[in-house]
Amino acid sequence: MLNDDLIGVAGGRWKLQTPALVVDLDALERNIARMADHAKRHGIALRPHAKTHKSVEIARRQIAAGAVGICCAKLGEAESLAGGGIDSILITSPVVSEGGIARLMALNARMAELIAVCDSAEIAARLDTAAGEAGKVLKIFVDIDPGLGRTGIRPDKAPALVAQIAGAAHLEFAGLQCYAGQVQHMESPNERRAASLSALQELGALRDGLAANGLAPKAVSGGGTGTFDIDPDAHVLSELQVGSYVFMDRQYNDVWQKPGGRPPFETALYVQTTVISANRSGLVTTDAGLKAFATDDGVPVIAQGAPRGAQYFFFGDEQGGVLYSEETRKLRQGDVLACVVPHCDPTVNLYDRYHIVQGDTLVELWPVDARGRSA
Amino acid sequence: MLNDDLIGVAGGRWKLQTPALVVDLDALERNIARMADHAKRHGIALRPHAKTHKSVEIARRQIAAGAVGICCAKLGEAESLAGGGIDSILITSPVVSEGGIARLMALNARMAELIAVCDSAEIAARLDTAAGEAGKVLKIFVDIDPGLGRTGIRPDKAPALVAQIAGAAHLEFAGLQCYAGQVQHMESPNERRAASLSALQELGALRDGLAANGLAPKAVSGGGTGTFDIDPDAHVLSELQVGSYVFMDRQYNDVWQKPGGRPPFETALYVQTTVISANRSGLVTTDAGLKAFATDDGVPVIAQGAPRGAQYFFFGDEQGGVLYSEETRKLRQGDVLACVVPHCDPTVNLYDRYHIVQGDTLVELWPVDARGRSA
Repeated sequence: MLNDDLIGVAGGRWKLQTPALVVDLDALERNIARMADHAKRHGIALRPHAKTHKSVEIARRQIAAGAVGICCAKLGEAESLAGGGIDSILITSPVVSEGGIARLMALNARMAELIAVCDSAEIAARLDTAAGEAGKVLKIFVDIDPGLGRTGIRPDKAPALVAQIAGAAHLEFAGLQCYAGQVQHMESPNERRAASLSALQELGALRDGLAANGLAPKAVSGGGTGTFDIDPDAHVLSELQVGSYVFMDRQYNDVWQKPGGRPPFETALYVQTTVISANRSGLVTTDAGLKAFATDDGVPVIAQGAPRGAQYFFFGDEQGGVLYSEETRKLRQGDVLACVVPHCDPTVNLYDRYHIVQGDTLVELWPVDARGRSA
Repeated sequence: MLNDDLIGVAGGRWKLQTPALVVDLDALERNIARMADHAKRHGIALRPHAKTHKSVEIARRQIAAGAVGICCAKLGEAESLAGGGIDSILITSPVVSEGGIARLMALNARMAELIAVCDSAEIAARLDTAAGEAGKVLKIFVDIDPGLGRTGIRPDKAPALVAQIAGAAHLEFAGLQCYAGQVQHMESPNERRAASLSALQELGALRDGLAANGLAPKAVSGGGTGTFDIDPDAHVLSELQVGSYVFMDRQYNDVWQKPGGRPPFETALYVQTTVISANRSGLVTTDAGLKAFATDDGVPVIAQGAPRGAQYFFFGDEQGGVLYSEETRKLRQGDVLACVVPHCDPTVNLYDRYHIVQGDTLVELWPVDARGRSA
């Protein structure tokens, strides 16, 4: 496998064909262990979100470290990771189309535990009918809208939907899901804490109201990397859906670094890129452009290979530009840079595989199993 | 093949699992024919850029319509399309790494015509050595920088590099490449015309100077969709590297529509997306987010399925939001929208296949063969 992709060079080190997605294995392992310890310490379950990594191997390592299962964003992602042997999956987006519901039932039939989310009475009724026809009960988390308006039902309307699902012949009311996406990247620690706890307070009131009516949710699932150390204090979530902590990225580093702190997890993900043109003064061009990084939030940060202060910019679909000072060193064609990615999830989704490294040594290639499985 | 991906519904029509990349076959064919006619009329060769579509099937149709071959942006893209039988390929980015040069020679050995670009004396020397060792002459276009500073050598420095390559034992000086990326999306027709012709004038002077010294380039390759109807007037380019015209996108539609004109090519590419949550007034959520569209230039334009005036916004990695007026119709879970993509090339690179449709009928699935082949 190695020889397809890598060219051996003198000294036992490897050069990658770039742009290449690179994972620092030791940092990844420490991140996985750190989050597992955190959850254990707070008596909260961990159901990491695999939409970040889309990798059977990383999901396995998260489960080996104590996770109860994983989350997937989409049905196709769940099909892919279930195919790799992951046997407890929550699909965090509503599945509503006729074709999607048919695939959901087929997946449920072959899994130990599949949980779907639902935010409407009409879809709940259709899921119940389909589960009945398929002959296997489907577990449902009712999806609660924390005020973001993306998916979910507002807490005041939720009890009726919970009652409908709890009373459905072929559905099991297994819990609540509530993901406050809007608070994860707030850079003021106080605002982030206040916003997250406020969303959870509302969720806690719903949970208590349901319990008083004999409909206590067995699980309450939510949270993210930005609030991993805030949410346990509310004593509402029973499981954390954290995703990005395995890799980190510039966005999440900013959450801690901008107010002057240190990120609680290490940057484990990089894109390596090679200088392909160097005919200008203080400017070189690399082989990683718009197809090599997600571009929704800023530019990559050069972490290695260029003089301090060098700035990356997008230079079209196929190339990146690097502006730098030539005072200490002139960059040349063939020089390799490593970049911290602006946003990890959609960047990973561009690549077919991870190059897993320890120091300068490439130790494994892992497929991005569910790459592109957005449907 | 169809049954894996599609769910048949009543009436013989098909519903796609979304988000899905959809191509209107008739519009695609008309675009291919229109550009081929244009080139023929102007006596200029066509070497369409496959970085847009990354598809063997579309490359074949372009060649069948008269193209002399295709362009690829990267070595991996060229390997993929050559593997599909495309036998004349220009790789438009410099290949400079040791591993890349080895792969380039292996590809050259098995192709009828492979052309690489070069913008430095050092790389030219290494390519010459490698081609000598591989035992097959490699064709080279000297890459000229039109002032953009991305790749290429400035015209004043080019003659020495041309002479070096023309004199190299294992290289063939096959021509010049010059891509003025900076002018393609200029929305003022006069500015676009002036900027493009000015870059070409400089290139023409270089060509004439080389010819006067017995180094006339056999080909001069460049241009793009934004200047396809300007560049022939300069009588400098001998072949056009147009890419986006096959699909079009919001960016290129703007080039003609913003000054009040009509795009010369039809929109042939769409992303279909399904409404998955509809609990708010005037707002629904669809299943296509940051992983379903390139995000480097604005948002998708809803072309079908929503009331007039509906606006799409990115709502996270996995979802899109649609703001609309409920006056004429309320959108519901399961409703399907078709969107014009903001930028076609990097959007295509997110998908594993094209759903080829004629009207409401799905007629074929084509793989995006070179998806992710950025290295």
